[in-house]
Amino acid sequence: DLPAVSHTLTALIDWRPSNSPKLIDLLDDTVPGIGTYEDFNTIDWVREKSKDRDRHREITNKSKHSTVALLFSISDAFSGWLLMLLIGLMSGALAGGIDIAAHWMTDLKEGVCLNGFWFNHEHCCWASNETTFQERDKCPQWKTWAELMVGVSEQGSVNVLNHFMYVSWALLFAFLAVILVRAFAPYACGSGIPEIKTILSGFIIRGYLGKWTLIIKTITLVLAVSSGLSLGKEGPLVHVACCCANILCHFFTKYRRNEAKRREVLSAASAVGVSVAFGAPIGGVLFSLEEVSYYFPLKTLWRSFFAALVAAFTLRSINPFGNSRLVLFYVEFHTPWHLLELIPFVLLGIFGGLWGAFFIHANIAWCRLRKNTRLGHYPVIEVLVVTLLTALLAFPIEYTRMSSSELISELFNDCGLLDSSKLCDYSGNSGGTSGSVNATAANGLGARLAGPGLYTAMWQLALALVFKMLITVATFGIKVPSGLFIPSIAVGAIAGRLLGVGMEQLAVHNHERKIFRGWCSPGADCITPGLYAMVGAAACLGGVTRMTVSLVVIMFELTGGLEYIVPLMAATMTSKWVADALSRESIYEAHIRLNGYPFLEAKEEFRHKTLATDVMRPRQSDPPLSVLTQSGMSVEEVERLIADTTYSGFPVVISQQSQRLVGFVLRRDLVISLENARRHQEGVVSVSAVLFTECDPPASPSAPPAVKLHNILDLSPFTVTVHTPMEIVVDIFRKLGLRQCLVIQNGRLLGIITKKDILKHMAQMANRDPESILFN
Amino acid sequence: DLPAVSHTLTALIDWRPSNSPKLIDLLDDTVPGIGTYEDFNTIDWVREKSKDRDRHREITNKSKHSTVALLFSISDAFSGWLLMLLIGLMSGALAGGIDIAAHWMTDLKEGVCLNGFWFNHEHCCWASNETTFQERDKCPQWKTWAELMVGVSEQGSVNVLNHFMYVSWALLFAFLAVILVRAFAPYACGSGIPEIKTILSGFIIRGYLGKWTLIIKTITLVLAVSSGLSLGKEGPLVHVACCCANILCHFFTKYRRNEAKRREVLSAASAVGVSVAFGAPIGGVLFSLEEVSYYFPLKTLWRSFFAALVAAFTLRSINPFGNSRLVLFYVEFHTPWHLLELIPFVLLGIFGGLWGAFFIHANIAWCRLRKNTRLGHYPVIEVLVVTLLTALLAFPIEYTRMSSSELISELFNDCGLLDSSKLCDYSGNSGGTSGSVNATAANGLGARLAGPGLYTAMWQLALALVFKMLITVATFGIKVPSGLFIPSIAVGAIAGRLLGVGMEQLAVHNHERKIFRGWCSPGADCITPGLYAMVGAAACLGGVTRMTVSLVVIMFELTGGLEYIVPLMAATMTSKWVADALSRESIYEAHIRLNGYPFLEAKEEFRHKTLATDVMRPRQSDPPLSVLTQSGMSVEEVERLIADTTYSGFPVVISQQSQRLVGFVLRRDLVISLENARRHQEGVVSVSAVLFTECDPPASPSAPPAVKLHNILDLSPFTVTVHTPMEIVVDIFRKLGLRQCLVIQNGRLLGIITKKDILKHMAQMANRDPESILFN
Repeated sequence: DLPAVSHTLTALIDWRPSNSPKLIDLLDDTVPGIGTYEDFNTIDWVREKSKDRDRHREITNKSKHSTVALLFSISDAFSGWLLMLLIGLMSGALAGGIDIAAHWMTDLKEGVCLNGFWFNHEHCCWASNETTFQERDKCPQWKTWAELMVGVSEQGSVNVLNHFMYVSWALLFAFLAVILVRAFAPYACGSGIPEIKTILSGFIIRGYLGKWTLIIKTITLVLAVSSGLSLGKEGPLVHVACCCANILCHFFTKYRRNEAKRREVLSAASAVGVSVAFGAPIGGVLFSLEEVSYYFPLKTLWRSFFAALVAAFTLRSINPFGNSRLVLFYVEFHTPWHLLELIPFVLLGIFGGLWGAFFIHANIAWCRLRKNTRLGHYPVIEVLVVTLLTALLAFPIEYTRMSSSELISELFNDCGLLDSSKLCDYSGNSGGTSGSVNATAANGLGARLAGPGLYTAMWQLALALVFKMLITVATFGIKVPSGLFIPSIAVGAIAGRLLGVGMEQLAVHNHERKIFRGWCSPGADCITPGLYAMVGAAACLGGVTRMTVSLVVIMFELTGGLEYIVPLMAATMTSKWVADALSRESIYEAHIRLNGYPFLEAKEEFRHKTLATDVMRPRQSDPPLSVLTQSGMSVEEVERLIADTTYSGFPVVISQQSQRLVGFVLRRDLVISLENARRHQEGVVSVSAVLFTECDPPASPSAPPAVKLHNILDLSPFTVTVHTPMEIVVDIFRKLGLRQCLVIQNGRLLGIITKKDILKHMAQMANRDPESILFN
Repeated sequence: DLPAVSHTLTALIDWRPSNSPKLIDLLDDTVPGIGTYEDFNTIDWVREKSKDRDRHREITNKSKHSTVALLFSISDAFSGWLLMLLIGLMSGALAGGIDIAAHWMTDLKEGVCLNGFWFNHEHCCWASNETTFQERDKCPQWKTWAELMVGVSEQGSVNVLNHFMYVSWALLFAFLAVILVRAFAPYACGSGIPEIKTILSGFIIRGYLGKWTLIIKTITLVLAVSSGLSLGKEGPLVHVACCCANILCHFFTKYRRNEAKRREVLSAASAVGVSVAFGAPIGGVLFSLEEVSYYFPLKTLWRSFFAALVAAFTLRSINPFGNSRLVLFYVEFHTPWHLLELIPFVLLGIFGGLWGAFFIHANIAWCRLRKNTRLGHYPVIEVLVVTLLTALLAFPIEYTRMSSSELISELFNDCGLLDSSKLCDYSGNSGGTSGSVNATAANGLGARLAGPGLYTAMWQLALALVFKMLITVATFGIKVPSGLFIPSIAVGAIAGRLLGVGMEQLAVHNHERKIFRGWCSPGADCITPGLYAMVGAAACLGGVTRMTVSLVVIMFELTGGLEYIVPLMAATMTSKWVADALSRESIYEAHIRLNGYPFLEAKEEFRHKTLATDVMRPRQSDPPLSVLTQSGMSVEEVERLIADTTYSGFPVVISQQSQRLVGFVLRRDLVISLENARRHQEGVVSVSAVLFTECDPPASPSAPPAVKLHNILDLSPFTVTVHTPMEIVVDIFRKLGLRQCLVIQNGRLLGIITKKDILKHMAQMANRDPESILFN
């Protein structure tokens, strides 16, 4: 049997000299355009994968005949790994650049370094010799804007001037960001994750991952983050990594030509994005697997992991934060937690779930308002107003003035001996915000009693919490790049720290009580408020995104201690359950639905008891299904059918009477082929027959030559019976990545179900508007 | 539309009082036995999942009507989590027990503790006050067997006596193990992973995960490990965890009744097994995902993670090794590695790949020999001979005498200041195997020059390497529980340590050369030989099992340092490539094939260009397909068809002439229904009509009552056209978990393709014997 197959294969392939630039063109090049897709359409996974297998077969076959082809075959096999390496390097480098630039520009809002304007605050003072370790952030070389202006010395006007400069810079950055986005790359706004999820599920949005989007998103991301808006760079970094991947794909035929293969690379790229955003390669891979990917074969798992690691190491060698860590908020805890602490952790989980549900609801309502009212016509003004509000309100409170990353870093941190933060102002410390702990006096429990600075900090944090919660709702969705990981983490970290300090004081004040006995030993910490901040962060992020394993693994990679997984897990699970009980959708799914993208969610099962016959077109009242017959139709008839309908494909049957199915032909292929025949095939006129059969039927010698379209006919269309439950149909569509499926009964073709029909049906069953599904 | 659906649902479900023990019996209980499977058969995933969805729908529906049902519905929703908790607790506890017992019994081979025979060597000397830190393992309370026997004092005879006792105990343990396995649970032998992979893919092997297998496997695993055979407990622990899961499933209706749901639980259990074996919960989950699972939805990912964590914490609270770690060989490295070291790491990868390919080839050849010759008739003698050989040869060398876990722990370890091992006998140490480092004298590079003890150790390790490599081939597959993770790791660790010490001495001796400059600074380590051992271990394990991500993550969890991932990854990748180039199969797949299980590998793509028509039955020369007609057949005719054929199902068509497909009926369901009708339905005789239609055809009033079998007819069988490429058919079978698929052409039923047909076809295309596929 084998030689026969091999013979068929050889016959199928016309062997060209290997110096031809297009070595591989088995299917695609018969007529240009056949086998490609239009914008805003869904790909056919089965066809793409078949194409790739054909290609692979061809290469393997050729490699047996010549050395050049063998080398080509080997290089083809390793091109995937090379591509991953390049994506990792490029994304890691970009992420490092973004970090450094954002850090510098954030500080630029407050002042400038006299040693060189290109130093940020921290580097400026590192370079200075006059800094003591305890006052790391104060040095003569760093001047606030008010200090630079001669003549301003009164404290009040210094503050006002600094505030004015802060607001002005913020407005300038935000204005530049929104203008750049509008002028050059409208797709660069937002987080990008909902669109990437949709693209990975097989949708086509041309330009969404193009070079302009990459350039503009990178620049405007820096501007947006620096402007102090309540947004993060994590979601956009995933988008940036995917843009890199998409652009690099163009250098590899294997990936340029195949939409399914390219999506495997994009899945890996989204792992890379999270890897550089959080310094968590394993977490990134799991994020891609759990949250964004649609088709994730094991080969992709392995390659994603490789790419994520390369990116993490590239970023680390750039060392943007000067701490040889990948993120600002890496922590190490040392105190164990007590079993009873699970109660506050679960409370944080409930808070996170409530916040998630509230945020999604409020944000979607706000976005809907923007979409449906005149508000949406003034995106620049909206961005400026939000920036102005943020900058005006954020400046007075220390915790909102600093960048979100710094805030999170401070909240996660355990209070060390030399910590000068107000959050660490315990009465055991020798007073004031700049005191160092008197280590020998810290023997009693008094060391953990709150000092006045800590109380102030608590009030400020409570205000910051309310401010962050409200402003984030308005910020996510404006026309600048904006991720919501960091704002969500910030909200959760503030809430967690507040609860943590509260618990700590409770334990210290009541250390004689039975339940707190053994928690506080003299000279050691009672409770780690930083751990509470981390748990709160996980809970809030979990509530908004409904991530589970990947979230816990990311947090695990940030702390590096297996013993803190249980609190994180308890909070994340509670958060997910609470949020799911209030509304089923994550923020990304909600945005996908808001935009009407055709996304078939793999996580939620379809649980209604409808049958294929309830969903298929045509409905009972509709005219019968538009079909082509395998022979007997003229070019004109086919063209009229194409003109009269808008369907994206037509079933081909033996005859109108029997309705016995032969195959399926796509509209696009049909149009291109007919045009091609009219233009290049001699003698084709309107009355020429269109044949989908392989052999010619007997025709009179005087008839014009027939147009043979057997090559564009899909002879193995997917079929289900009318009695098939929709749950199985949905499963088939999801798992095989179909675009359409034909419905037959006892061998007769009765109707067709497309992905759009299924999505509409699902919307209907969930009491939503089926017309909200816009694309096919 | 919704009320109508809901009405239909209510009509479908007959509501029973909720105190009925069988609350859920929509489909299964019409006739007992319908919807179940026979032993050594493959399940139909689509049907099982439909059953579960029906069940879920019913519960949700009922919960709207009564509070009891609502509570039941909630408890049902959380029963999965409860089950995971129980599996984690039970597996963790069993793993802890196994560790403690194996540790004690391993030491029992050498001697006994006078303070109490239940102490192992280490605990015995801990309890003693007369031990110094440097001679931890020497204390008067621990007596070797020779010391106990009065009158033996000459060194030679002491050694001989100890050797004799060692061999005797080993033989006793091995004999007990093999006798217990043979007498009570033949399924308890081997690693169990190939069978679990097959079971997870939908195969049924009754009793493989039963309570007897659990009990006997747990006991004999301890015996087998203690006997000193070259085997590990990791694979068997996965089997033990799956047994726990399967047994616990019996307490939950949801999982007891549904083969697909139970397989989700088993997937989680295999994660638990690896989690307790290596103390790597994340690695365990990835192992389950990458290596053993077939259907792994996201919900299972999350639950696996939970169960793996619970198990890890249970094991840790048992603390079997007294080091608050989950495994004996947890390490922390501190010295960074140099880029040039990637060359030896890649060399280790090549070694690992070669070892993997050699091991698989040799082991399969040996197993085939056992299967096909008289060797297989004497399993007890085989075990005893292997044990005797192992014990006789292992005793003289220190590194083979100790248990494999201890050996690995010693090889992974970095040489600390107080290390008394021969492996740490550097000339900077004050001589001999029991010397402590002279910390002040260790200033020069001489501190890293090898001492005489190290040279001896190297020779012994080289001998141990050859011994382990050969004996492991003969050991894996004998009739006792045996895992091959630990032997593979041991082989790799020995090779790695050898290379590591070699590299170290090279660097120390040539520290003036350009390439080694900067590697060795005085007073610090040059190179970490322990890291080489770890990299070698990963490479060898990777070569044998072809694991990738999960392996790297397990090793990452053992070391806890992100910076050592790159060496591990380089070695694992090289090893996989080298091994794959030599043979495509992992050891598990090879064993699956050896046993002829029907396993459709998801990793390897089917790349041949055959069509459905080439694979379907009947072949051209065969008699036509055996079909039933939807009406017009009598009970006798159907019974004769059943008796004449052995097919496990029959298509139902409208008439023999048209061959238009109506549905598919399973042989088992048909047999049970006909028997049931003959026994319980009045007036059914041989000439009674068998009807698969819903409505009665006109029949003469005198005719005997018809047997209506509409309820067992599957109205939505999967169909493909004759032109469908086999690569797509294979994809459909894999992704949807089908058992069979009907082949049609232009609406006419032409044939059938079963899973077995596909496996046979694949075997044929790969030039293997298609008759090696034994089951369906």
